[in-house]
Amino acid sequence: MKVVVLAGGVGGARLAFGFYKALAPDDLSVVVNTGDDFEHLGLRICPDLDTVMYTLAGLANRETGWGLTHDTFEALDALGQLGGPSWFRLGDRDLATHLQRTVLLSNGLRLTEATDRLCGALGIEARVLPMTDAAVATKVVTTEGELDFQDYFVRRRCEPVVRKIRFQGIESAQPSPEVLAALRNADAVVIAPSNPFVSVEPILALPGVRELVAAKPALAVSPIVGGQAVKGPAAKMLDELGLDVSAAGVARRYRGLIHGFVMDQQDEGLAGDVRSLGLEVAVTQTIMRSDADRASLARDCLDLLDRLGS
Amino acid sequence: MKVVVLAGGVGGARLAFGFYKALAPDDLSVVVNTGDDFEHLGLRICPDLDTVMYTLAGLANRETGWGLTHDTFEALDALGQLGGPSWFRLGDRDLATHLQRTVLLSNGLRLTEATDRLCGALGIEARVLPMTDAAVATKVVTTEGELDFQDYFVRRRCEPVVRKIRFQGIESAQPSPEVLAALRNADAVVIAPSNPFVSVEPILALPGVRELVAAKPALAVSPIVGGQAVKGPAAKMLDELGLDVSAAGVARRYRGLIHGFVMDQQDEGLAGDVRSLGLEVAVTQTIMRSDADRASLARDCLDLLDRLGS
Repeated sequence: MKVVVLAGGVGGARLAFGFYKALAPDDLSVVVNTGDDFEHLGLRICPDLDTVMYTLAGLANRETGWGLTHDTFEALDALGQLGGPSWFRLGDRDLATHLQRTVLLSNGLRLTEATDRLCGALGIEARVLPMTDAAVATKVVTTEGELDFQDYFVRRRCEPVVRKIRFQGIESAQPSPEVLAALRNADAVVIAPSNPFVSVEPILALPGVRELVAAKPALAVSPIVGGQAVKGPAAKMLDELGLDVSAAGVARRYRGLIHGFVMDQQDEGLAGDVRSLGLEVAVTQTIMRSDADRASLARDCLDLLDRLGS
Repeated sequence: MKVVVLAGGVGGARLAFGFYKALAPDDLSVVVNTGDDFEHLGLRICPDLDTVMYTLAGLANRETGWGLTHDTFEALDALGQLGGPSWFRLGDRDLATHLQRTVLLSNGLRLTEATDRLCGALGIEARVLPMTDAAVATKVVTTEGELDFQDYFVRRRCEPVVRKIRFQGIESAQPSPEVLAALRNADAVVIAPSNPFVSVEPILALPGVRELVAAKPALAVSPIVGGQAVKGPAAKMLDELGLDVSAAGVARRYRGLIHGFVMDQQDEGLAGDVRSLGLEVAVTQTIMRSDADRASLARDCLDLLDRLGS
C-alpha cells in the first residue's frame, strides 16, 4: 500500500517514522509543511523538514523534539557573545544542515532536490517532500498584531492570542510536481497528528491538494488527546479560534476531507460524536513514547485504511 | 606616537599585538588586507581580519595560526558527512564570526563598520580597519592557470608555481575613509612581517595609499629570516618571481616606500646590503614565539622610528 503522510514537525515526524518501519521505504512519501520555513543568519531553515529528516534518520533529539541528539551549541554561544541573535536554538551539527541546504539552493537546486540530497546523505530511503518549492510563509494574526511564525512560536512562546492564520504567498504557490505525483499514485493519505492550523492546512491550501486528498481513502490522527495537545499550541489555537478543544473538534475541522479518524483511548467517550460525522473510527494508543509505539500506531492506521478501502 | 600597521595574517597579527601592548590603544590602527576574503557557504570570510581580531583579543589558536583556540569542528564534520565542502577549516565558534559578519553586512553595514562591531564585542580597543569596503580579490596566476587565493593557499597548499599576482577589482576600489584618515593622522607606518605580494601589496595598490605611506616615517619588518619565510609561501613566491630570497630581497621590494628596515639577527650579514639601499636598519630578534617577543619587537620598531624621525 502506497501511503502519503502529510506532516508538520514532531508528531508528524514520529508517525512518519512508524510508517517507515511498517512499510517498504518505496511505499512511503512524507509531504512536509514548509510554512514555518524562514531565513535566519542568511541561512534557509526548514524546521519541519529537519524534524522529519532527523527523526527518520534516527538522529532527532527525543527530549526537545527539535534538533539533533547530542548536538553542541558552540557557534550559537559565540554568536550570542558577538551580539548576534541566539533566540533560535541552532546546534553546531544542525547548522551544517542549514549551511548545506543554503549552498544547494544557491547552486540552483529546488528545495525538493536539496531535501533529496540531504536525505540521501542521511541514509533515508523514504521520500521526504517539501509541500512546495515556492515561498509560503505562515503568519499568525494575534490580538497583538500579525507575527511571523517563528516569532510567534519560538520568540513569543505561542503566548499571543490567535485570531487568524494566513499563508503568505499561497495564492501563487504550487505543490511541487513530486508532491502531485505522490498524491496521485497514493493508495491512501494519512494526516499526521500535527497542528491542523499551522502544519496541515498550509499543505491543504496549495492548489489542487485538498481535492487530491479527498479523492483517496484518507484518515487523520488526532493531535488532541484528553483535551490537550500532545505538543505545541494546537489546543490553545482551537480554543482561541472558538472551536471545540477535543479530538472531535479536530475531526470536525477535517470533515469532507477524510473518511477515517484515529483517536486516543483516553477519548473513547468521543468516538460516537466522531462517528456521527460519518467517519470510520479507530480508538487506540496514540501517544508515541517509543519506536515500537510509532510503528504500532502506523499499523493501526493501516488497519483502518484497510477498512476504509473494503 | 600614532602608528598604522599594515598587516596580513599571522605575522602581521602578532606584531600588531606587540604594538597593542606597547602603545595606548588609541594610538594604534591596524590596516588589514582583504584580498584573501571570499564567499564560502554563503558567508563572508575575511581570514586576515579574523586572524588580527582573534590575535588582538587573545583568542587566536597559536599552534595553527588560524582560527580560535580550543575551537571545535562539529558543524564542519557534519557538513562533510552531508556532502558539503569541508576543505576550508571552520571551527564552530569561528563560524559565529562569519555568520554575524554576514548578518551585519546584509543589514547594510560596510565591512569597516561590521569589523568595528565585532572588535567591540571581542573587547578590542585598537582600531582594526579593513583596507577597503570594496570587493578586491587576490588572484594567483600560476603555471597551472589562475587560481582564487584560497584555492591556491588552502586547497592547493601553495604548490602551483606562481608567475604573477593580480588584485581583481583594485582599479575601482578605494581605501576606506577610515584608512585614509588613519594614514593621514599617523606619525609612522609599519609594514608588518607579512607576505609582501599577497598581504601588503594589495593594501599598497589601493589608490593613494602608497603615496600616503611614503610621506610618513615608514619601516618594514622582514618576513624572511635565514632565507625562509617564518610562515606561508613568501620565500617560495620570491623565488618563483625571480627575486632574491632573503631579507635584502624584501627590503629591495619596498625601496622608495620605506625609510627603515627591521631584520632578524640571523641575517646580520645582510645588514650592509640593506643599508646600501639607503635604509636605516635595526637588527634584532624578530621571531615572535611569546607575547613578550611581540611587545619587544614592537618596541624595537618604535626605537627605529624614533631614529628615522630624528
